[in-house]
Amino acid sequence: MRVALWQMNPTVGDVRGNAEKILQGISWARAQKADLVVFPELALVGYPPRDLLFRREMLQAVERVLEEGIRPASQDVGVLLGAPVSEGGKLYNSALLFFAGRLYARQDKTLLPNYDVFDEVRYFQSARKRKVAVFLGERLGLTICEDIWNDKDFWPRPRYEFDPLEDLFVQGVTLLVNISASPYHYGKKRLRASMLSHIARKYACPLVYVNQVGGNDDLIFDGSSLFLSATGGIVWEGKSFAEDYTVIDTGDLPQAGDPSQVSEDIEDVFQALLLGIRDYFRKTGFRKALVGLSGGIDSSVVAALAASALGAENVTGVGMPSCYSSRESLEDARMLAENLGIEFRVIPIEEIFSAYLRVLNPSGVPLVDLAEENLQARIRGSILMFISNREGHLLLSTGNKSELAMGYCTLYGDMSGGLDVLADVPKVMVYELARYINRERAIIPPRVLMKAPSAELRPNQRDEDALPPYGTLDPILKAYIEDNLSPGEIAALGFDEVVVREVIRQVDRAEYKRRQAALGLRVTTKAFGVGRRMPIAWKKGWE
Amino acid sequence: MRVALWQMNPTVGDVRGNAEKILQGISWARAQKADLVVFPELALVGYPPRDLLFRREMLQAVERVLEEGIRPASQDVGVLLGAPVSEGGKLYNSALLFFAGRLYARQDKTLLPNYDVFDEVRYFQSARKRKVAVFLGERLGLTICEDIWNDKDFWPRPRYEFDPLEDLFVQGVTLLVNISASPYHYGKKRLRASMLSHIARKYACPLVYVNQVGGNDDLIFDGSSLFLSATGGIVWEGKSFAEDYTVIDTGDLPQAGDPSQVSEDIEDVFQALLLGIRDYFRKTGFRKALVGLSGGIDSSVVAALAASALGAENVTGVGMPSCYSSRESLEDARMLAENLGIEFRVIPIEEIFSAYLRVLNPSGVPLVDLAEENLQARIRGSILMFISNREGHLLLSTGNKSELAMGYCTLYGDMSGGLDVLADVPKVMVYELARYINRERAIIPPRVLMKAPSAELRPNQRDEDALPPYGTLDPILKAYIEDNLSPGEIAALGFDEVVVREVIRQVDRAEYKRRQAALGLRVTTKAFGVGRRMPIAWKKGWE
Repeated sequence: MRVALWQMNPTVGDVRGNAEKILQGISWARAQKADLVVFPELALVGYPPRDLLFRREMLQAVERVLEEGIRPASQDVGVLLGAPVSEGGKLYNSALLFFAGRLYARQDKTLLPNYDVFDEVRYFQSARKRKVAVFLGERLGLTICEDIWNDKDFWPRPRYEFDPLEDLFVQGVTLLVNISASPYHYGKKRLRASMLSHIARKYACPLVYVNQVGGNDDLIFDGSSLFLSATGGIVWEGKSFAEDYTVIDTGDLPQAGDPSQVSEDIEDVFQALLLGIRDYFRKTGFRKALVGLSGGIDSSVVAALAASALGAENVTGVGMPSCYSSRESLEDARMLAENLGIEFRVIPIEEIFSAYLRVLNPSGVPLVDLAEENLQARIRGSILMFISNREGHLLLSTGNKSELAMGYCTLYGDMSGGLDVLADVPKVMVYELARYINRERAIIPPRVLMKAPSAELRPNQRDEDALPPYGTLDPILKAYIEDNLSPGEIAALGFDEVVVREVIRQVDRAEYKRRQAALGLRVTTKAFGVGRRMPIAWKKGWE
Repeated sequence: MRVALWQMNPTVGDVRGNAEKILQGISWARAQKADLVVFPELALVGYPPRDLLFRREMLQAVERVLEEGIRPASQDVGVLLGAPVSEGGKLYNSALLFFAGRLYARQDKTLLPNYDVFDEVRYFQSARKRKVAVFLGERLGLTICEDIWNDKDFWPRPRYEFDPLEDLFVQGVTLLVNISASPYHYGKKRLRASMLSHIARKYACPLVYVNQVGGNDDLIFDGSSLFLSATGGIVWEGKSFAEDYTVIDTGDLPQAGDPSQVSEDIEDVFQALLLGIRDYFRKTGFRKALVGLSGGIDSSVVAALAASALGAENVTGVGMPSCYSSRESLEDARMLAENLGIEFRVIPIEEIFSAYLRVLNPSGVPLVDLAEENLQARIRGSILMFISNREGHLLLSTGNKSELAMGYCTLYGDMSGGLDVLADVPKVMVYELARYINRERAIIPPRVLMKAPSAELRPNQRDEDALPPYGTLDPILKAYIEDNLSPGEIAALGFDEVVVREVIRQVDRAEYKRRQAALGLRVTTKAFGVGRRMPIAWKKGWE
């Protein structure tokens, strides 16, 4: 059987537009003489559609498009796609197989993820049964994303008691299919390849894996679809972070590669962020980005990413020096803008800052306290938002995950913006990104990578006056936020327990800031935002 | 049997503090010669604990406190309380009955709400079975919150197929107990009384209902606990929006009242907001509030609420006139502050605004565009945050639900603040609150209630230049946001379909602002925030 894999980038809610992409895939597959073309999970509505799934008009449009667009196009080719299916007042996350102009098979999703960023139990009912679909002589095991992530030989502690694959394979399966919308985090590509290879090998069954690609708000879907042989070898690997497609003849498989060769490095994070930026702009209808350039590493990396994602002609950098800014910082910002070929403006904040202080410090003498530090950040935020409002830019905020974790950032100041590009990138990884950006030539001025990080909000300020060195801080933060370890467990990894407890105290206290933070692009196993749901008004009554 | 009901206000995460409150309740019950004392759902950790439930240290503290504190205190009195119970790597939302110094019975929650603001499937496993607990001759049917909200005779479309009450009553129940953490919205008290009365009557069984009280972040729990007779009459109704307790002898019930007499009006919303403010301050450790006073209705109502909740001595109002402010506005703000007895400061923004415009409008001539309007709002936000940072106030933001819905508000401007008191109060209801506040004397200057709402960000600006009249807008917003109706369905209620579609377009577009909004207190059936999960980058591909 000739199977086409169509790794597509849907827009959430855009039933009509997504259907057009699907029809395009069907035409291509037909031209390739494919017997079956496979699209991702919920391809018609994009993933995650969130509470749009409660809009009856959207669900009606899905039914209409399936009936009038997709079904008729399946005359001579099998079409397998993901869509929400409403039945008896309940909603299912389904894989629909159309063929010969009719609905040939339907398999609902069994395992509904409801952890981290996932809320599927909010919307869907679980499949009541699983049935192999016999299609052109193949026995298709149809599964949807999470359904395949619960093998008891692969996972030390499977999340669910029930394994849909066991239920399918007792019925006999000759081709296992998984349609997915599996969001990226650093390390996921390797994990996924090794897990899927294990499944193919365990059941001695070829596996078609078609994943969504694209950025949808905070989540980035990497694609990286796979066709695995019955021995778990990689027959085809779809592009990461771009649409891709292929057609494969199951009766005549090309040489299979070693799944342990699936590589992953800082370039993946770079590409993930590019896609996240590009799709956020495209899907919200923005074209131009604005970035405040401090001459520091974070804003430099964000500007470089934005220029790569959107084109240098669509990025404007703004330097906003104060009396506490070093001359070098402005030089570095200007140099960066030149190297990137982006527009650069300089708007000193001194005069505005003085106007505030005249009104707010009746003595006229600055106190150089936190209130004044934050005020400078807020003046910069107001200037950037002014330009954004007047000229129609989307402001990118530049706070990294380490800062956001510690609350080392100013609400309505440097936290201003529609999208925080580095919100899930720890500071040490920001440096890795900078070195990657500079891999061929020094786009980011080398001095930016060398100097000690500083907010430059008072004389001789250094991040390390307020925070542990990032080389210590970042692993503590990872242990706490991503691995959910206790202070004692983190200290046992080799950190000073006093430091660990202080870091945790600050992370907990800063929740109120993060609640109002811009949307951030997720690249680790646990990002702030929808995947981490913390109360604000609470007390640690257990120490 | 003598049953004590202990309607308490726990702090989320404060296992030790909540345990102390519980022990206090046990002592009181013992002194009242009660046989059983009943506490709310998850009383030991507060509701909703959210991802704190993933902290093993917290769960260990719960075990310790149960074993060392609660169990020994149950020698001579039955103690029924809610706590998370960890077993076999799974977590349960349980009702634990201690008696004679041991764990006498445990009933896990069966129905786990996972809609609107609820995420219980994220944390808990459902009960596998339900077993009546025989205690001092009574057959107790133990249920937890949602377990009792699924009666197929009361609800036209019950949410779950399974009804835990049916399963309990076939075993024989002589006293039905429900421990709850049931958040308030306007109308909930009546609904709850009528639903619970129906249950008691249907099963001809007395019903003890103990609800949590208190504000936890956005959610306000009203308490309003009930003891219902076997004919559905109200034997006791706990206070709304305050801790309360009683003891009732099931063998000697006092005269029961009519549940349809449970009243609910604007005073409930007022009290709910007071509790929400008071608890947010107390539980975050703040004492003093700051409010920008524009002389408009929203900030007037917020200041009045804050003064009632925190004491006038803890509230500071700031008037920040510009060249576009009317003289009346500043007078009204000053008069309000005087009437409330709160501190009032005036900080004109003119000089700061000019400093910005000199830098941002090279021509020096104001354009009076949206950018300049927003800038004024952001200057005010920066001034308020400066005072907040320097003096340790918590800034209250004053945007109402209608504004927030339409995006008629400025990010980092009037949206600044830690808590948005009116975020879920539609504009028309803001007026109702104002009239309630003025019920005895004109605390809010009458002119504030009379004049046309205006943001005063440019000459002769009126809300109604940009928005439909609030009398039209608010019902459209309710139909869309609370009742989830389609544009066609809303128009069929008697609204101009063009207006309806434009309102919906604006609501959808403003999602990015709401994503960064301050926490808002919930008082309707559907608030923005955690209960309404919308994507930002999406396209309506179905019209």
